[in-house]
Amino acid sequence: MSERVCVIGAGPSGLAALRAFESAKQKGADVPEIVCFEKQDDWGGLWNYTWRTGLDEYGEPVHCSMYRYLWSNGPKECLEFADYSFEEHFGRPIPSYPPRAVLADYIMGRVEKSGVRDYVRFRTPVRWVDYDQSSEKFTVTVQDLKNDHTYSEEFDYVVVANGHFSTPNVPDFEGLRMFPGRVLHAHDFRDALEFKGKDVLLIGASYSAEDIGVQCHKYGANSITFSYRTAPMGFDWPDGFEEKPLLQKVEGNTAHFADGSTKEVDAIVLCTGYKNYYPFLPDSLRLKTGTRLYPEGLYKGIFWLSNPKLMYIGAQDQYYTFNMFDAQAWYARDVVLGRIALPSREEMTADAKKWVAMEEACENPEQDIDFQTEYVRDLIQNTDYPFLDVDQVAKLFKEWEHHKEEGILTYRDRAYPSVITGTMSPVHHTVWMKALDDSLEAFLDVRQAAE
Amino acid sequence: MSERVCVIGAGPSGLAALRAFESAKQKGADVPEIVCFEKQDDWGGLWNYTWRTGLDEYGEPVHCSMYRYLWSNGPKECLEFADYSFEEHFGRPIPSYPPRAVLADYIMGRVEKSGVRDYVRFRTPVRWVDYDQSSEKFTVTVQDLKNDHTYSEEFDYVVVANGHFSTPNVPDFEGLRMFPGRVLHAHDFRDALEFKGKDVLLIGASYSAEDIGVQCHKYGANSITFSYRTAPMGFDWPDGFEEKPLLQKVEGNTAHFADGSTKEVDAIVLCTGYKNYYPFLPDSLRLKTGTRLYPEGLYKGIFWLSNPKLMYIGAQDQYYTFNMFDAQAWYARDVVLGRIALPSREEMTADAKKWVAMEEACENPEQDIDFQTEYVRDLIQNTDYPFLDVDQVAKLFKEWEHHKEEGILTYRDRAYPSVITGTMSPVHHTVWMKALDDSLEAFLDVRQAAE
Repeated sequence: MSERVCVIGAGPSGLAALRAFESAKQKGADVPEIVCFEKQDDWGGLWNYTWRTGLDEYGEPVHCSMYRYLWSNGPKECLEFADYSFEEHFGRPIPSYPPRAVLADYIMGRVEKSGVRDYVRFRTPVRWVDYDQSSEKFTVTVQDLKNDHTYSEEFDYVVVANGHFSTPNVPDFEGLRMFPGRVLHAHDFRDALEFKGKDVLLIGASYSAEDIGVQCHKYGANSITFSYRTAPMGFDWPDGFEEKPLLQKVEGNTAHFADGSTKEVDAIVLCTGYKNYYPFLPDSLRLKTGTRLYPEGLYKGIFWLSNPKLMYIGAQDQYYTFNMFDAQAWYARDVVLGRIALPSREEMTADAKKWVAMEEACENPEQDIDFQTEYVRDLIQNTDYPFLDVDQVAKLFKEWEHHKEEGILTYRDRAYPSVITGTMSPVHHTVWMKALDDSLEAFLDVRQAAE
Repeated sequence: MSERVCVIGAGPSGLAALRAFESAKQKGADVPEIVCFEKQDDWGGLWNYTWRTGLDEYGEPVHCSMYRYLWSNGPKECLEFADYSFEEHFGRPIPSYPPRAVLADYIMGRVEKSGVRDYVRFRTPVRWVDYDQSSEKFTVTVQDLKNDHTYSEEFDYVVVANGHFSTPNVPDFEGLRMFPGRVLHAHDFRDALEFKGKDVLLIGASYSAEDIGVQCHKYGANSITFSYRTAPMGFDWPDGFEEKPLLQKVEGNTAHFADGSTKEVDAIVLCTGYKNYYPFLPDSLRLKTGTRLYPEGLYKGIFWLSNPKLMYIGAQDQYYTFNMFDAQAWYARDVVLGRIALPSREEMTADAKKWVAMEEACENPEQDIDFQTEYVRDLIQNTDYPFLDVDQVAKLFKEWEHHKEEGILTYRDRAYPSVITGTMSPVHHTVWMKALDDSLEAFLDVRQAAE
């Protein structure tokens, strides 16, 4: 087969694409040539931790939004690959809420074994993509940073998998310009110890605010104040936390909130979300969407309606993660291989509209979970991706939501059974609030586990 | 004239280009159509202060490398425009070392008066530039961020003026990954008050390290430690400062230096310089250079040797700044207008080599100043740019160097005569170490000045 597929990004979504083609190849299929362009010096996307913030050593925006001491904020049983269990990777069952390094080891372990590293050109950001109607080919222009060399290549398909949790959404507030302390977006948060003894204000009421606030508390911040636009998170916060309505302005160190109350703060963390950002795509190919479960303009949440040879993987907001990227990658692969025929433009558009309407009818997290469960089910039933019991995954997601409500500092001490192997996970050797060492070695330490 | 000129960037260098064409137009010349693409929402380049770091509200790298309380680190008399004096702008003489806001007001005041704002398309970063040999035109592809719209236009000339003090050079050191405090590049430094009471380590021995260190001291840091690679700055540092050889590693909060000494530090600022960074240019057009007074590959420090329709303004390291950009812009303009004929490729190459050799023969700051003085003199004698007494400017630069050596905390209390008007500048109403308010209003306050 002389066709060529370009994959942009070697994070979990891009790696799913590589793995999907590799899986078909191992089963004897004739697959196209795959080239994956990756900006970073290794794969793993967000899971590549770096101390760097802002711009990296080549002047490119730092992709990493993770921080030291980050632990999974959902059960690992909800993100387990159907074709590669945690038990297979680690040789034994491990607890349900692993720290970053352990999850990174798992994701990368699968692809390392699959031998797809040769497909990836590291340190090679994509600068521009064009599509030529007459030749029906994409021209992808990239920069090889190590050799400071730009070049272009032609492809029949492009898979956009550069993620959407790396470009921060950064609002302004009156007085930030003169605030006499650090102001940062969650994207640039790295080490909670910087805020030890400090009064920290976090703007936002979603995962970043919740987790960075809890982290700073765990590592010794003096107080944590959350500020919400719409509604408080409403957890049963322990002493040292409070929730305030939206920040109105800052005067010196004093933060003023919508209810007229004030708080003296030392640092401000904007936990205000991320943007889908594709600076290398022209209007005709560029997805324009906010963070949502079903972006408009994508058939099956994957195929760009006005040119389905362009595909997006992982462009939606996520309960499901790694296994959903797999489901998308297997489906995209089967379209490229001709195993699945895309319907007419009209049918695709109507189908996408139907899903968008279903998404917009969702009214709470449980319905959101059910929606994404149906989405993943719809994809996997059409490919040879191994069976995944999505009803069981959905059940775990809902239990997780309840467990968070029961204890925002203790939910990570829970354990769940694997959806893939059925094995019940062990309880971790140390309760999360006392587990200050987040290294892989500490987490997997058998001696501590035996005590 | 139906020719079109694209100017990339509306900072001091790009504005000099706009001003040069406008000046010719006002004198009756037929000038090409000028389009200036600017990433920020206003002009001024680095002089546009923002509290933001990393990526801006559109996800673009933040251009600003300036910080609160930044005052000019050289006499304003060395950067005065020959066609627009400080006295003309402010209506009276002002002291020699103004804070950022005052200099910004001056730079932007000149262009505001000249009426070139209509040339600038704000919030429009350039994504890619191509040159077509057959049509002899450049295609410039940009993104209108406000309307989320990409488009391309053709130009006969391109002036690259996006600056080279915005993309940080960020080395790694052993242990930074685990350092339990803030690590940042000088590019992201904003407010010295964040470091009040802290022990701050600054890596570097040039302007950023010197000035940020002095700033942090002024605003209450507990101690300032500089770490140099080649040689210490060697100023007669007051108590609270020390210079160490290069950082070898960090363990916890302990910094280890090449001489075996250690220091406990709370924050690390990498004052390790900036890169010439042109992610929108292909190999055939892209200047590849470190920070130097005469980058290779540019005739007259401006014209790209392998395609002189591409011009760079301000791409060199700088003693001279605003008036040098003017000298370059006037020269570039006169080539575009056909007033100056470029010599043959061979002659241009030989000339550039001659200047590079002269630059490489320089052995100390005084010789560097003399070199750049000759460079500016060579440019201005060929255009109608108003007379600038560069020998007098060079004399002031050398006095400034001596004054810094006499007192790194007091040199900004000096005053110098204007090279343009001859007027002696007044001494500022407050010594710099006590001038904590860096606003334009405080600096220009006549009542304080009278006391």
